[in-house]
Amino acid sequence: MESFFTLRKPEEVLALLHDFSACGEEELPLDQAICRVLSRNMVSMEDLPGFCRSTMDGYAVRAKDTFGASEGLPALFEVVGEVKMGERPHGGVGQGQAMRIPTGGMLPNGADGVVMVEYCHVLDSETIEVSRTISPLENVIQPGDDIKKGSTVLRKGSRLRPQDMGVLAGLGFGRVPVFKRPRIAIISTGDEIVSVEDAPADGQVRDINRYTLEAFCAVNGAVSEFLGICPDDFNRLKGLVENGLERADAVWLSGGSSVGTRDLALAVFETLDDFELMVHGISISPGKPTIIARSGGKPLVGLPGHVSSALIVAEVFMSPLLARLSGLSENKGPREGRMEARLSRNVESRSGRADYIRVRLRKEGKEWVADPIFGKSGLISPLVEGHGLVKVDVNTEGLYEGDRVKVLLFDGGAV
Amino acid sequence: MESFFTLRKPEEVLALLHDFSACGEEELPLDQAICRVLSRNMVSMEDLPGFCRSTMDGYAVRAKDTFGASEGLPALFEVVGEVKMGERPHGGVGQGQAMRIPTGGMLPNGADGVVMVEYCHVLDSETIEVSRTISPLENVIQPGDDIKKGSTVLRKGSRLRPQDMGVLAGLGFGRVPVFKRPRIAIISTGDEIVSVEDAPADGQVRDINRYTLEAFCAVNGAVSEFLGICPDDFNRLKGLVENGLERADAVWLSGGSSVGTRDLALAVFETLDDFELMVHGISISPGKPTIIARSGGKPLVGLPGHVSSALIVAEVFMSPLLARLSGLSENKGPREGRMEARLSRNVESRSGRADYIRVRLRKEGKEWVADPIFGKSGLISPLVEGHGLVKVDVNTEGLYEGDRVKVLLFDGGAV
Repeated sequence: MESFFTLRKPEEVLALLHDFSACGEEELPLDQAICRVLSRNMVSMEDLPGFCRSTMDGYAVRAKDTFGASEGLPALFEVVGEVKMGERPHGGVGQGQAMRIPTGGMLPNGADGVVMVEYCHVLDSETIEVSRTISPLENVIQPGDDIKKGSTVLRKGSRLRPQDMGVLAGLGFGRVPVFKRPRIAIISTGDEIVSVEDAPADGQVRDINRYTLEAFCAVNGAVSEFLGICPDDFNRLKGLVENGLERADAVWLSGGSSVGTRDLALAVFETLDDFELMVHGISISPGKPTIIARSGGKPLVGLPGHVSSALIVAEVFMSPLLARLSGLSENKGPREGRMEARLSRNVESRSGRADYIRVRLRKEGKEWVADPIFGKSGLISPLVEGHGLVKVDVNTEGLYEGDRVKVLLFDGGAV
Repeated sequence: MESFFTLRKPEEVLALLHDFSACGEEELPLDQAICRVLSRNMVSMEDLPGFCRSTMDGYAVRAKDTFGASEGLPALFEVVGEVKMGERPHGGVGQGQAMRIPTGGMLPNGADGVVMVEYCHVLDSETIEVSRTISPLENVIQPGDDIKKGSTVLRKGSRLRPQDMGVLAGLGFGRVPVFKRPRIAIISTGDEIVSVEDAPADGQVRDINRYTLEAFCAVNGAVSEFLGICPDDFNRLKGLVENGLERADAVWLSGGSSVGTRDLALAVFETLDDFELMVHGISISPGKPTIIARSGGKPLVGLPGHVSSALIVAEVFMSPLLARLSGLSENKGPREGRMEARLSRNVESRSGRADYIRVRLRKEGKEWVADPIFGKSGLISPLVEGHGLVKVDVNTEGLYEGDRVKVLLFDGGAV
C-alpha cells in the first residue's frame, strides 16, 4: 500500500548535510558576541602583555646583583622608588638598586627580575636586604609571553567561550566578526493540532512540537520563528512554507505521521522553485519518515509528527545541520560523543535500520550505567525521563547487558 | 610580611555556598521559559494523551474479531467509515466491523485495536480482508499512557530542556513558574585597567575580566550588569559596591592581585551593612586570594585580578554559586564530572593546596588524552588553548603520566 521511497542510511544523510554552509556574517560589539561563532581567524595586532610585568609583589632588581645572596649572606640594595600600577616607572634601576613593585606593575628600566617580598628585609626607607638569588626574568612576564603579535589567537568557526571573550578584550577587539545565527521558520502541521492555550476536543492534541523545536533551536544557537499551526491543506501549507523561505534560512515543518499528510508535505515542497529532494526516509527508528530537501539552497525539513521521533531526528541530524548553518568548524571538540556507560539490559533491534533508544543514566560506584527506557513509540515521557540516546547500529541485532555504549546526551545548557 | 588569613579548603568553600538560595520566582509564558529553572513541581492536570489514539495507519477493529486470522485464512470486515484527524469518529465499530484510521486518529467506540494497513486487503469500498491476528490494545495508546493525570512530570529545580518544554505544552501549561535569573553586578578594579576601546599606555592593560565574567554569567544562566572600571580608591569602590547590592542579587569584583588592592576590597566590604566574611583565601592554585562574603544575605565576591585565576575560581566556585542562586537542584545530572582522560605527562604539585591545571584534550584511538598546558601564572592563552581543568588534590604531590583523571570541562554551550 505504502509507496516506498529509498531509505538513506544515517551516515549518508550526515554527509549530505555538508552541502549546507553558514548563513552570512555580521560584526558585533564584543559584549554581544557571547557564544557566537567567529567568521574569521582573529590575529593579534599587538603583544599581550604589551610591557614587562611583575607577577609578584616585591622588588624589581638586576637579577645578577642577587647572585650569591642567601639567608646567611644577604645582598644589600638601595631602594630608589616605587612602581605605581598603571604607570610607567619614574627612573630606572642601576647596579645595587631596587624599586618596590606590585603584582602587575611595569618593570623599570634596568631591572630584569623581581624578588618576592617574602625574601626582602626592609632595613630603612632606602635600604633592603635580599636573602635569595633570583634568575633573570624570574617573576616577570615579558611582552608577548601570553600572546605574540601576529599570532592567530582564535580560529574561524569556533564558538566564543568566556576565556575567548577575555582574550579578544585583552587584544582590543571591541567588535568581532561572527556568523549570523541561522533563522529557522517552524510550522506545525495537522488537522488535530491545537495551540497550548486551547482545550483540546476529542481527537485533538496540543502543539507539542512547536515548543520542543523552538527550544532545540535556542539550545543549538539558532533563532526560531514560529509561523503557526497549519491544517492538512495544500494551499495553506504552501503559503506558509513559501513565507518561511522568504524570511528564514531554513523551514522545518513537523507533522504528518500518517501517510496522507506526509505526502502532503512533499507535494508542497515539489512545487517550490529550484527544488531538490535530498532525503526521503532514513533507515532509523524512530524517525524514518523524515524529508530533507532544499529550495534555492535553503534547507526544507519535514520532521515526523510524533515529538519523540521529531526530537530524536533533531538531535541526530538537525544539530549537525544547525552547526553547518552556524559556521561551526568540523572539529566540535571533546563535548561530543565522549560519554560512555554500561548498558544495564539487553536491547533488541531490527537489523537493517539504526535504532535510537532512550536511556537514563545513573552512577554505580565509579561507573555510569545506562538504563534503557522502553515504551510505545510516540510517547514523550521517555524523553523527559531520559538523559540521552544510544544508537544500535544498522547491522547489529541488538546490544547486550554489560556492553559499553556511547551516549549522545540531550542538550540543555544554560542560555 | 603578608598578613596571612586562614585559607579554606575547596570542599569547605563549596559547603558554605549552600547558605545561598534562589533569587525569587516569576511566571513566564512557556515560549520564554527555555532553559529556565522550574520553581515548582509540575503536576499533570490531565491524561496525555487525553483519548485513545492509533499509533499506525490502518483499521480500527475489535481485536477478538481478528483472532485466528492469517494469510491462509483471512477474516472479513465490513468497513463502516473513516476516522478523521482531530475529530471524534462518527459512529462506532461493532462485531465484524472496521473503520479506517490514520496514525494519531481517535479510536472509535467499540474498537480496541488497530490492524496495520499492510495486513489489510481492500476487496471493495465496504469490505476488507485482515490477514493477521492482533491482540487487544495493539497499535493503540490509551489515555494517560504517556503521562497520567496527577503525576509529577517535572520537578522544581530542573532546567527546562526541549523535551521538557514539549511535555509542558502537551499538558496545557501556557505559563510556567520559574526562578528568576540571578542578576550579577560586575566591577573591574585596578588603577592599571582601561576599557577595551582604549589604547593602553605603558603599565596599563585592557579590561579582560569584564568580558570573561559577563560571558561566564551568560553561559551559566545568569544576567550580568557591568558597573564599570574602578580605580583603587576606597570611596569610589564603596559607592559602586553599594550600588551593585541595591540593583543586583550579588556583586562580583575582580582585581587586586597585589596585597594592597586586595586589602582595599575587604576594607570596603567591611563597611557594609549586615556584613559577614565567609571565605578569605582558598587553598587552591591559582585563585588563592579569593574573598567570599555577604551583606544583607547577598553574596559579595572578590575574585583575583588575573583572568586565569578569576576564571578558574569561577568554574570551580562561582558555577555552583550561580546554580544555588538559580534554584537548580543538587542533582545536576550526568553532564557533570563525567569526562575522563589519560594524563600524558607528570604534573607536580605543592602539597597543602589543590592545583587546577589546564589541559587540552585529544583522542588517541578510542581514548581521550589530556595534555597539561604549562605556562607562567596569569596567562590567558592556556585557557584559550585548553578544554578544561584537572584538579590535583590537596594531599597529593602530583599526578603521573598515564593516570586516569577527571576533567572539568570549560562551558561554552550555545545561547
